[in-house]
Amino acid sequence: MENQKTINKSISVKAADSAPFYNNVDFCVGTGRFGLALTKEYLDELAFVQEEIGFKHIRGHGIFTDDTAIYHEYEEDGINKVEYNYTYLDRIMDEYLKLGIRPFIELGFMPKDLASGTQTVFYWKGNTTPPKSYERWCDLVVALLSHLIDRYGESDVTTWPIEVWNEPNLPGFWEHADMKEYCKLFKETFTAIKDFNPSFKVGGPAICGVKDAEWIKGFLDFCKESGLKPDFITRHHYTIEFPEADGHYDYSTLMDEEEGFANLQSTRDIIDSYDEYKGLPIHITEFSTSYTPKGVIHDTNLNAALIARQLSRLGDMNESYSYWTFGDVFEETGVPFSLFHGGFGLVAAGCIPKPTFWTFKFFKDLKVLERGCVFKDDNAVIEKTDKGYAGVLWNESSKEGISIKLNLEDIAKDGDTDNEYTLIIKTVSPKTTNPLKLWHDLGEPATPNSEQTKLIKSAAFPQVTSDRLTASEGSISFDQTLDPETVVYFELSKSKVKSDRGYSYERTITTR
Amino acid sequence: MENQKTINKSISVKAADSAPFYNNVDFCVGTGRFGLALTKEYLDELAFVQEEIGFKHIRGHGIFTDDTAIYHEYEEDGINKVEYNYTYLDRIMDEYLKLGIRPFIELGFMPKDLASGTQTVFYWKGNTTPPKSYERWCDLVVALLSHLIDRYGESDVTTWPIEVWNEPNLPGFWEHADMKEYCKLFKETFTAIKDFNPSFKVGGPAICGVKDAEWIKGFLDFCKESGLKPDFITRHHYTIEFPEADGHYDYSTLMDEEEGFANLQSTRDIIDSYDEYKGLPIHITEFSTSYTPKGVIHDTNLNAALIARQLSRLGDMNESYSYWTFGDVFEETGVPFSLFHGGFGLVAAGCIPKPTFWTFKFFKDLKVLERGCVFKDDNAVIEKTDKGYAGVLWNESSKEGISIKLNLEDIAKDGDTDNEYTLIIKTVSPKTTNPLKLWHDLGEPATPNSEQTKLIKSAAFPQVTSDRLTASEGSISFDQTLDPETVVYFELSKSKVKSDRGYSYERTITTR
Amino acid sequence: MENQKTINKSISVKAADSAPFYNNVDFCVGTGRFGLALTKEYLDELAFVQEEIGFKHIRGHGIFTDDTAIYHEYEEDGINKVEYNYTYLDRIMDEYLKLGIRPFIELGFMPKDLASGTQTVFYWKGNTTPPKSYERWCDLVVALLSHLIDRYGESDVTTWPIEVWNEPNLPGFWEHADMKEYCKLFKETFTAIKDFNPSFKVGGPAICGVKDAEWIKGFLDFCKESGLKPDFITRHHYTIEFPEADGHYDYSTLMDEEEGFANLQSTRDIIDSYDEYKGLPIHITEFSTSYTPKGVIHDTNLNAALIARQLSRLGDMNESYSYWTFGDVFEETGVPFSLFHGGFGLVAAGCIPKPTFWTFKFFKDLKVLERGCVFKDDNAVIEKTDKGYAGVLWNESSKEGISIKLNLEDIAKDGDTDNEYTLIIKTVSPKTTNPLKLWHDLGEPATPNSEQTKLIKSAAFPQVTSDRLTASEGSISFDQTLDPETVVYFELSKSKVKSDRGYSYERTITTR
Amino acid sequence: MENQKTINKSISVKAADSAPFYNNVDFCVGTGRFGLALTKEYLDELAFVQEEIGFKHIRGHGIFTDDTAIYHEYEEDGINKVEYNYTYLDRIMDEYLKLGIRPFIELGFMPKDLASGTQTVFYWKGNTTPPKSYERWCDLVVALLSHLIDRYGESDVTTWPIEVWNEPNLPGFWEHADMKEYCKLFKETFTAIKDFNPSFKVGGPAICGVKDAEWIKGFLDFCKESGLKPDFITRHHYTIEFPEADGHYDYSTLMDEEEGFANLQSTRDIIDSYDEYKGLPIHITEFSTSYTPKGVIHDTNLNAALIARQLSRLGDMNESYSYWTFGDVFEETGVPFSLFHGGFGLVAAGCIPKPTFWTFKFFKDLKVLERGCVFKDDNAVIEKTDKGYAGVLWNESSKEGISIKLNLEDIAKDGDTDNEYTLIIKTVSPKTTNPLKLWHDLGEPATPNSEQTKLIKSAAFPQVTSDRLTASEGSISFDQTLDPETVVYFELSKSKVKSDRGYSYERTITTR
Repeated sequence: MENQKTINKSISVKAADSAPFYNNVDFCVGTGRFGLALTKEYLDELAFVQEEIGFKHIRGHGIFTDDTAIYHEYEEDGINKVEYNYTYLDRIMDEYLKLGIRPFIELGFMPKDLASGTQTVFYWKGNTTPPKSYERWCDLVVALLSHLIDRYGESDVTTWPIEVWNEPNLPGFWEHADMKEYCKLFKETFTAIKDFNPSFKVGGPAICGVKDAEWIKGFLDFCKESGLKPDFITRHHYTIEFPEADGHYDYSTLMDEEEGFANLQSTRDIIDSYDEYKGLPIHITEFSTSYTPKGVIHDTNLNAALIARQLSRLGDMNESYSYWTFGDVFEETGVPFSLFHGGFGLVAAGCIPKPTFWTFKFFKDLKVLERGCVFKDDNAVIEKTDKGYAGVLWNESSKEGISIKLNLEDIAKDGDTDNEYTLIIKTVSPKTTNPLKLWHDLGEPATPNSEQTKLIKSAAFPQVTSDRLTASEGSISFDQTLDPETVVYFELSKSKVKSDRGYSYERTITTR
Repeated sequence: MENQKTINKSISVKAADSAPFYNNVDFCVGTGRFGLALTKEYLDELAFVQEEIGFKHIRGHGIFTDDTAIYHEYEEDGINKVEYNYTYLDRIMDEYLKLGIRPFIELGFMPKDLASGTQTVFYWKGNTTPPKSYERWCDLVVALLSHLIDRYGESDVTTWPIEVWNEPNLPGFWEHADMKEYCKLFKETFTAIKDFNPSFKVGGPAICGVKDAEWIKGFLDFCKESGLKPDFITRHHYTIEFPEADGHYDYSTLMDEEEGFANLQSTRDIIDSYDEYKGLPIHITEFSTSYTPKGVIHDTNLNAALIARQLSRLGDMNESYSYWTFGDVFEETGVPFSLFHGGFGLVAAGCIPKPTFWTFKFFKDLKVLERGCVFKDDNAVIEKTDKGYAGVLWNESSKEGISIKLNLEDIAKDGDTDNEYTLIIKTVSPKTTNPLKLWHDLGEPATPNSEQTKLIKSAAFPQVTSDRLTASEGSISFDQTLDPETVVYFELSKSKVKSDRGYSYERTITTR
Repeated sequence: MENQKTINKSISVKAADSAPFYNNVDFCVGTGRFGLALTKEYLDELAFVQEEIGFKHIRGHGIFTDDTAIYHEYEEDGINKVEYNYTYLDRIMDEYLKLGIRPFIELGFMPKDLASGTQTVFYWKGNTTPPKSYERWCDLVVALLSHLIDRYGESDVTTWPIEVWNEPNLPGFWEHADMKEYCKLFKETFTAIKDFNPSFKVGGPAICGVKDAEWIKGFLDFCKESGLKPDFITRHHYTIEFPEADGHYDYSTLMDEEEGFANLQSTRDIIDSYDEYKGLPIHITEFSTSYTPKGVIHDTNLNAALIARQLSRLGDMNESYSYWTFGDVFEETGVPFSLFHGGFGLVAAGCIPKPTFWTFKFFKDLKVLERGCVFKDDNAVIEKTDKGYAGVLWNESSKEGISIKLNLEDIAKDGDTDNEYTLIIKTVSPKTTNPLKLWHDLGEPATPNSEQTKLIKSAAFPQVTSDRLTASEGSISFDQTLDPETVVYFELSKSKVKSDRGYSYERTITTR
Repeated sequence: MENQKTINKSISVKAADSAPFYNNVDFCVGTGRFGLALTKEYLDELAFVQEEIGFKHIRGHGIFTDDTAIYHEYEEDGINKVEYNYTYLDRIMDEYLKLGIRPFIELGFMPKDLASGTQTVFYWKGNTTPPKSYERWCDLVVALLSHLIDRYGESDVTTWPIEVWNEPNLPGFWEHADMKEYCKLFKETFTAIKDFNPSFKVGGPAICGVKDAEWIKGFLDFCKESGLKPDFITRHHYTIEFPEADGHYDYSTLMDEEEGFANLQSTRDIIDSYDEYKGLPIHITEFSTSYTPKGVIHDTNLNAALIARQLSRLGDMNESYSYWTFGDVFEETGVPFSLFHGGFGLVAAGCIPKPTFWTFKFFKDLKVLERGCVFKDDNAVIEKTDKGYAGVLWNESSKEGISIKLNLEDIAKDGDTDNEYTLIIKTVSPKTTNPLKLWHDLGEPATPNSEQTKLIKSAAFPQVTSDRLTASEGSISFDQTLDPETVVYFELSKSKVKSDRGYSYERTITTR
């Protein structure tokens, strides 16, 4: 990395500049199977994520899968009857609410007792067949919502979005990828919920990028014919080619990112081509680079930079975008054999933040401060703040560094004496924030002990540096170098030094 | 700092090498006034220090000062009587023991009711006059020890060392610096304690470096004449010239360090010149660079490097050495006006570790691993460990960098295939670990809010990096550059990479 | 107690009944010296109180006393200057806000550097003389408020009530109890604050019950003449005769409670006799039974019952009433020698709740549920709630029990099948909740160790029992016996039993 | 309960009395499926149990069941290979060790990949067939132990007892209850472990009370023939008749307790009839009243009293006895539908202690103090302690109370002035400690919210009362009434009242 080429670049902004940027970084995040939320490690990781980033919603599979044990049929007096068990549901929901996060409810998969077939998906065997009785399915959905309202209140629960099923366009997730059957499922479910309480927002079809245009059109045509108006449309978004497997791992090549954005735009365009559905919100209910839970890229610094670009652009045509997933407690292809295993999570076991965690943190901090975006390109998003400017910079290249000359104008009026600024820089690069490397250098311990975990974690936080700058002619300029695969957060804020009586920082650090 | 000169240096060690190094870094640490241990901030800071470093003993002034409210006289039936109040004493001791630390008891200052005069020292007015009644003084001392034994058990309490008074060679700390009166105090106290329970270890004279030779001799002559054998000798050690004051701050010049070590050696020599006292342990019950609680050097990276040298040498002629102090809750010259204020502490308010904190942490980690010192000079201490080598490196210069070529031999036998190593490097330099600078760049907020404290703390931890190295001809070599005012910890440990099936770190980070 | 007499009583209420009851139990609570809020024990006790009861404001002495170290004068260039130190103030305020409590600011006592004289009050020597410079006093007050606004925001800080000084009608608290000088202090302070920010609410004269009528009149006459309109009037309220001292303790006889209420009513009447001040809110900024911090009654069950009556009545003529004090960290007459020592606190050291703690908890729970008071007498307050009724019952007698037959009407309509109720009873009596007795039986350990503290605490919580009752003719009746010195909380709430399939509680407890 | 009959009884003990009582209450406790130890609720409950009681070992099923995901087979290069995954194992073990508890390892059930058949047991489908390859089974066992040693150290791990399988005498737990096959499993496993590390202690046959004599003999005969010497024998012990089911619940009749003890004695006798195995330790690796996880008796006060008798007797012929189970996180017959559901646990969800929890706590406290048992019968165990006496008293009757006159002799010598005692009484009865009733009275909420949980918990702790007694003629007598279904702990300890100066408890509580 030492002899890398460096590209020079310069960015200059004025306070009145404007660039399109819709920052909805914290609307939703993905999770492993709902039932895993019973485990301590899951909750520790989620607490860490909520403390630092703070998402509003959480979406994942399996609320109706049998490990949550909600749906049961039994015989009594020769009659087949239904009963519901909310013990685990309530335990999980209580924890979510304690952590300030609320479900984006995905209705699925099928409880065994209610399934029409035996097809399952994943190591944990989610049943992916239609219900044997749509009436009982609708009863189950309404019973769930009714129970949640009883426990948590109508005004809260009706704000939790509801998505019908997951990726029915894949035969593994929905028997035969039968679009007609899915449409039936959607209609029955949508109607039952709206009949129960029209305040709920319900959407679909939760598809991934396979035959997506066909599905979106087919779904909307069906809705139109059936007189249904979904509250929102959902789809997924991943950015790799089909990966190559080796042992427990998947190695993949990246797609062209622009192709991905274009694909999303086409979904937007299809929807907008219907008079009835023009402008309907789109929620990307899953996105990441690789779509496999053993995609080694997830643990890398490169991933952090790639996701920065995604976060800068996904709001352009979508209401929200939910990173898949917040943590590494996940069992779709089995229990991970090793700390770093290409898991989807923002954090690894032991609450070790991966580089991508910080991309989210930086965009969240930006959102908190934002007073209008003044600049956006493929390496930067810059916001006006109350006290100056803040921004996220990134470099997706693995080979070339970038040296950015930043010129931030309109920061102080000419002759203004109140022209001093604090600059905070937080850097996440392969050199500064690389827990994967430290773990590798330790010998790749499968399950690090607490001492090793502490050591790995000590290499997992951004480097934080600072400076004091003085505006000149109303502007402040500084250079920021981005190493390859790097994400940087900066914040420039007006600040006066108010030294205590007799204190001189310069004199203090006067050296021998 | 960019154009600094760099000095090249090389160090080569063999497993069988030996260097004199007595690492007693964790025996004792200093504290502000005993009564301050009631406060939350003090206990938070101590908990942080104990969690990371873990000292065995804690020593400070004021166990008998009136804010702990132990000693009281009152009139009853026309008679003047004495009563003791252990409410605060017990509260403090309970907390100390919970944190795994035990007092190095300093007996002083004088309770107002028991004082013969009105002279006081410090903002908090510790009375520094002899007791009006030596009988009541001895009763008080024995009552204290007896109470402690009742509550915490004889086997524990009798291991807590006892020091008689503080710096009686300064008139401010002991009226007229009256050596004869001090000797009386020592004799009365020593005798009372030994009569009560001879297992206690009792020492003095707790002097600082003023007329120290004269005092040590005078004290030992007195002991000899009186037939007393103190269990240990105590003195203090600071390494600055008389400072210049400005407002709330003191700016000072450093003494020549070798002069300081020579002065300590002379104490050792005086003691050893007495047949009776030859080899008596010496405890440095206070040491630091500056001796004032507004000595700005304490907060700097330079201080961390200076203390590294002290920790490498003080064991040469002393049993222990207690850094003055663990934290910044301290009121001798008043309540600090500002977060960084030149306080003595290893940590600042809000549990922000100062650079010197890490010097202690690094020497403590070394102690845990030590299997014999193989090298020591003015920039390095290197230990053999079970799995390889570990060491602390430092650079006290403010102007010149040092580039050390380390050659660690005897690490694997020739032809040994088990020759892979993990290298962990922890760096504390003005660039990596500089909370003082970040605070300054923020505008020197007197009492940072929680968000600012978090930000400052994020710049207060070592940079941790790692590497994998392979032994060649039984040795491992690597270069380590020390910026000015830098302390580095390294640990080289044998370790194999045991990759999970299909995992390739190299392939994982193969980049775009 | 076994052969006690029992008085029979019956109370019958209807839903439409109404009784005057102004429950402001949680508006404010008293505290020991402001500087004690730095200590861990203080903060632990306050956290416990806030968790269970949750007061809005906290009021105590000494914000300007020198242990908080706010005000300083110093010489520079031959000029006497002023500087402020907010280190401790901010530390304390941060903790208060974390615990959800905000100051009811009492301005006092005088910083030594600003005092005109040397008179002090208490073991901790609060200076009780007028300022040597009213200008500097006003500057100090405004600087304090200005600093608080900078740190915590104007919209929050301006809701913190401000009281000028404490008990100036006693010569110990205000030199010579000089009313004219106090009026000057009030005017200068009031005017300075209102000039700075008129949103602040400022009141006085914070008197106790000595010459109270004279002082209230004198103060209001002065205000009227000076054209001042205080935002509220403050006074104190204790209900014992002058106590008898023995060693560290005060034993006292109770006043007639009605006399106390009459005295408070007379203050109300005096204020209302002024056209300008009619209806001005009165805040009782201190109240309790005994006014000494070694008043043994505070730790007893009797106290809990006495305070129940106070809480039922004090709202009749006062806006609020602040119990003196929340906890036992308190030093006015010195550091307590023993766990139970007649301290003012609702909780004793180690977060042991005293019986009176529960009186507050019960009234707070009542407030949370209240939908209008339906009954109040000298043994009961009963509220309508959403689901039924709730109330606090008490018995101040030490000799006679009371058996109350409660008849709660209008609870279900005739023929209503939804007529099942849960009754929860919480009892605090000498038999059920008596940590003082357990501590005595243990031998009155001065500072119990953690095991003893746990044991004492296990006897300090209410006995909780329950029952299921069925309404008959729209009413529910039950008998509740009150032992002497007892406080009881009850809550009767509509509730259906929804048994799980196959579960029968009756059958479960069917016994051998 | 009001008109109950009361039986009078008197117990008199001397210091020199002796009664056989082997208190090993804390050696081991049972747990639901090993994999459940990943969940937060499980760990919260275990932490609560460890904090209050503190067991040394924990035993449960399913270490090899597939949810822990340890054993895997896969194809590579056309070859079927084996790999192990310790991610969840380590996570669980780390938590156990943090809580100070260590496994009593039960080897089972069969990983799916290693099973010879498809038979499963329980809702969670533990495979109960022999291994398809004994070689791979033995490899798995040794790999597990080897991994544990690597992570936790040989000296620790080799003290964890190992039991081969669970209840092979039931066909549901071991295909066909095939004794010959079990003996083979035992031999292979025992031999493999001893070959690996002979320090491990290995035992079996882990049978329940069906054909137990036949199995014990068969097993020992086999061992004798095969030249094996197991380190200990294990069996189970439940005390109910076959229950009657209704919905989710089982209602049962109690067996005669003496029959149960006789059955255990017969196991002891069989073992002792072999010269080779005489005196071999017996571990009861499961015991309770009902053997079903929906046995309503578990939640009752009666259960607490019944278990008291068990704890007083089980040590007579067994080395240890492990209550089945510590908590209510348990899924053998599915996820519980309701808070109280007849679960095995000492604590219910939300860390609500059931009455039986206190029986264990009381026996544990007794063990800590014990200096020799002086009395044991069907209602009492009494120990000599350093400071006096302590005991547990119980009443298993549901109809009759018992009034015990206790006379404790040899407590002070005649004329001894040091004759004052503290008596602490902790009572767990249907009136004092009955969370089941409070929950029922609330309407039996299936999953109480946090407020309801707090309320139920407030009724789940013992009533603690105290007294001061004075010895007369060297003895202390007091009466203790036991309501039906009650357990009482008492502790009588020498203690002097040391009142603070001026304090009089009698005067303090002198009342109005």
